[in-house]
Amino acid sequence: MSRPLTPMDRAFALAEEAAADGEAPIGAVIMEGERVLAAERNRMQALRDPTAHAEMLAIRAALAARGTGRLDGCDLYVTLEPCAMCAGAIAHTRLRRVYFAAEDIKAGAVENGIRLFDQPTCHHRPEVIGGLSAGRSEALLSGFFRTLRT
Amino acid sequence: MSRPLTPMDRAFALAEEAAADGEAPIGAVIMEGERVLAAERNRMQALRDPTAHAEMLAIRAALAARGTGRLDGCDLYVTLEPCAMCAGAIAHTRLRRVYFAAEDIKAGAVENGIRLFDQPTCHHRPEVIGGLSAGRSEALLSGFFRTLRT
Repeated sequence: MSRPLTPMDRAFALAEEAAADGEAPIGAVIMEGERVLAAERNRMQALRDPTAHAEMLAIRAALAARGTGRLDGCDLYVTLEPCAMCAGAIAHTRLRRVYFAAEDIKAGAVENGIRLFDQPTCHHRPEVIGGLSAGRSEALLSGFFRTLRT
Repeated sequence: MSRPLTPMDRAFALAEEAAADGEAPIGAVIMEGERVLAAERNRMQALRDPTAHAEMLAIRAALAARGTGRLDGCDLYVTLEPCAMCAGAIAHTRLRRVYFAAEDIKAGAVENGIRLFDQPTCHHRPEVIGGLSAGRSEALLSGFFRTLRT
């Protein structure tokens, strides 16, 4: 018997779907307790929109699903450390926790770069749990970028 | 004879429309040369979406209008200094210039707080021109927040 899918498993399935579709392989899931509020993945190429990161799409979908104008008490699972834009959106929507897989040394803004949630001008600091299945995410991303270069 | 409307005049008209609608008075216009690509304003309350800042809506509308997946060579005019989320979106879309009116000491991320475009992890730095009609924007914002408190 296989174990039930975790939210991060779902995020990885979405990241793989993105890769198969020629998008950078990043997936994001937002949970409210046991309920999947949103499950999205990178759609930058398809939408011709460099802001169409998995997290931004998931946040807007979760807001639409919830209807309260906030995501307090909800948790985000994402396969890559969020960038400044996405970290800003996480703070604005008051997400409770952020679980991420791989760190993003170049553009991450949570445990790298600007470390947005640690700044005095950041008005909401979610709990952050990084490094879950980091190797799986790194393999997916490096495989994808290797394909782009060949 | 009245002078033609500047992009910042348009942004202010949108900010006033937002205030009349119970939204924080912030407007944004994106120009490609003489062409208005997008003109939006804060819609956080109406959309029940704390990420529905004027800049984010204008950026997505301008991307849709242009269809190239980038806003290189385009300029953003906004009545308030962008936050971290919006500054991130500005960098991702490669906007050429950002003109803003009032500084936002509490949540601004361009000349205050994280100063995103000055960070080594920021991959595109637009030209920034701040302080245009700053007093007009400050009066609009303080009038709005005064109303909220009474």
